[in-house]
Amino acid sequence: MKAFEKNIRKVEPYVPGEQPQEQVVKLNTNENPYPPAPGVAKALEEMDLGRLRLYPDPTAEVLVDALAEFYGVSPEQVFVGVGSDDVLSMCFLTFFNSGKPIFFPDVTYSFYKVWADLYRIPYECKALDEDFRIRKEDYYPENGGVIFPNPNAPTGIYLELDQVEDIIAHNQDVVVIVDEAYVDFAGRSAMELIDRYDNLIVVQTFSKARSMAGMRVGYAISNPELIRYLNDAKYSFNSYTMNQTALICGAEAVKDRAYFEENLQKIIQTREWAKKELAGMGFELTDSRANFLFVRHPKYSGKDLFEFLKKQKIYVRFWGSKRIEDYLRITVGTREEMETLFTALKKYMEER
Amino acid sequence: MKAFEKNIRKVEPYVPGEQPQEQVVKLNTNENPYPPAPGVAKALEEMDLGRLRLYPDPTAEVLVDALAEFYGVSPEQVFVGVGSDDVLSMCFLTFFNSGKPIFFPDVTYSFYKVWADLYRIPYECKALDEDFRIRKEDYYPENGGVIFPNPNAPTGIYLELDQVEDIIAHNQDVVVIVDEAYVDFAGRSAMELIDRYDNLIVVQTFSKARSMAGMRVGYAISNPELIRYLNDAKYSFNSYTMNQTALICGAEAVKDRAYFEENLQKIIQTREWAKKELAGMGFELTDSRANFLFVRHPKYSGKDLFEFLKKQKIYVRFWGSKRIEDYLRITVGTREEMETLFTALKKYMEER
Repeated sequence: MKAFEKNIRKVEPYVPGEQPQEQVVKLNTNENPYPPAPGVAKALEEMDLGRLRLYPDPTAEVLVDALAEFYGVSPEQVFVGVGSDDVLSMCFLTFFNSGKPIFFPDVTYSFYKVWADLYRIPYECKALDEDFRIRKEDYYPENGGVIFPNPNAPTGIYLELDQVEDIIAHNQDVVVIVDEAYVDFAGRSAMELIDRYDNLIVVQTFSKARSMAGMRVGYAISNPELIRYLNDAKYSFNSYTMNQTALICGAEAVKDRAYFEENLQKIIQTREWAKKELAGMGFELTDSRANFLFVRHPKYSGKDLFEFLKKQKIYVRFWGSKRIEDYLRITVGTREEMETLFTALKKYMEER
Repeated sequence: MKAFEKNIRKVEPYVPGEQPQEQVVKLNTNENPYPPAPGVAKALEEMDLGRLRLYPDPTAEVLVDALAEFYGVSPEQVFVGVGSDDVLSMCFLTFFNSGKPIFFPDVTYSFYKVWADLYRIPYECKALDEDFRIRKEDYYPENGGVIFPNPNAPTGIYLELDQVEDIIAHNQDVVVIVDEAYVDFAGRSAMELIDRYDNLIVVQTFSKARSMAGMRVGYAISNPELIRYLNDAKYSFNSYTMNQTALICGAEAVKDRAYFEENLQKIIQTREWAKKELAGMGFELTDSRANFLFVRHPKYSGKDLFEFLKKQKIYVRFWGSKRIEDYLRITVGTREEMETLFTALKKYMEER
């Protein structure tokens, strides 16, 4: 071993869902099956090439202003980053420095552990109940901060806002992050609570409901004080994280509220229909309120189903990890994609 | 003070050069005065909007392959990030964990201190000599890592490759980062040394010589082992940092070697002409080999010159910090921009 290797920060690398290059039915990374708002295409076509030689606006004003207007908050309450992973990671770095363990659910977004390890933040995982629900009382003991997704991933289960508020209210000495990557498909956002609790940060993304995973845009909404701390950390790290295309296309996407809402409705309808179809095939499902389904079949192994589907060029997500050994997470695609999936699943069951 | 405020990571925010929105002669952040390669415009126009709904390729293959081909290395030797700031910051996080102080020059890129503070890495600044040159012997004592830009910023002074090699050779127990943001304007890159020293990382950027500051692309070239450690850290942090437009446009920019070289020659010619003009006006200059000039006038205060120019809508960079109180850093713009600057400077001098 070389001397310098001792001092390298070793991490357990996160393994992202596969991004196959060939043509497949891709239901494995919760992307939106519909393209971004039409204004985005126009913005790309009209992009000023000469502007690309210049640094982007470090304050990301055009995008921050569009988000502030959309949510009826002030621009000082909006922080933007390179996808919600960048925003969340920046929150961990900025807010979770007490030395006390932060709390998050045992079955949840797998990046929380990774960031905690990366920044050497102690953590405790709180077990979901047997129906995969967050128990608010688990988050009452003293801690260094709280984070949970709502709806939770990969269960899709949405925690009603009064329970979210209860967790925030019980943790006013620490920062509470509600990770709402999927909330647009689900119900009320914790953004309504921002004026009431100065320890609350709500994080959302353009990767799901806004069909722009490829553009890498995420954001946090909070009070101006916490947003200022985040911006200070960001400017120290890299002043210009958002490139010019992300700023311009991001702003265009936010402006088209009608397209956004129509897109959501289509996905919600497909989801509810798909739930019935899968239940009809004997699958057990959580009541997912996200743009994915979390399912298992009492008769078939999750791993076998996953591998069979992959051979059919249908990609879904499978972890095989504790408590969710037999579960598959299936992104809600177009109706046609879901029908292709159902046909394959029926074939599998008939052959066994 | 709220309880949670105690545990917020407080940083000295880096203050980036101003990005004025109005029309000005902008010679303050070392951008390239010429647009990116023509293939970039075409790539933007032809961007597949449907592709934006999908996550970008986390391995950034199209861009990594283009860089590997350009430099004649293998793709396993290339790491890409959101500008060289992202790449450098990731290097600090990954490699500088020994607890011993890292070494860098006292007059240098101001972000090094900021990242060291952010990640709680101890550091020692090594004073440049009285001609603003790096003294290689200063980097011989035991340390936790070494980083310096070549050419150095904001002095523009290029350290000959044998001296760079001497520093690397004396530090084989730690990682040495040569930050070559401006090397294309200057001379030989330390990339030639990569096969000989397994502790060497060379970092470059698309923001200067490739006219793409607005797209946020930086990269590191090293041996496959160190690149793997960087990728492990990156995947833990945010698997998808490079958005689809950065990947595609970045690859297009790299492919056009002829445009790149022609662009460089134009800037180098303007720089050498501008040096003579400024010397003729009585300015003292370092022998900058970058795309900027580092100048002071024995008769006039740097601060006054800076403020006068700003009123004329000519933006240059001024810090007023220790050792460089009277220096201005002037980006090499087009010949026309430089003439506008010279006219303003002559006017200032005549009036005093």
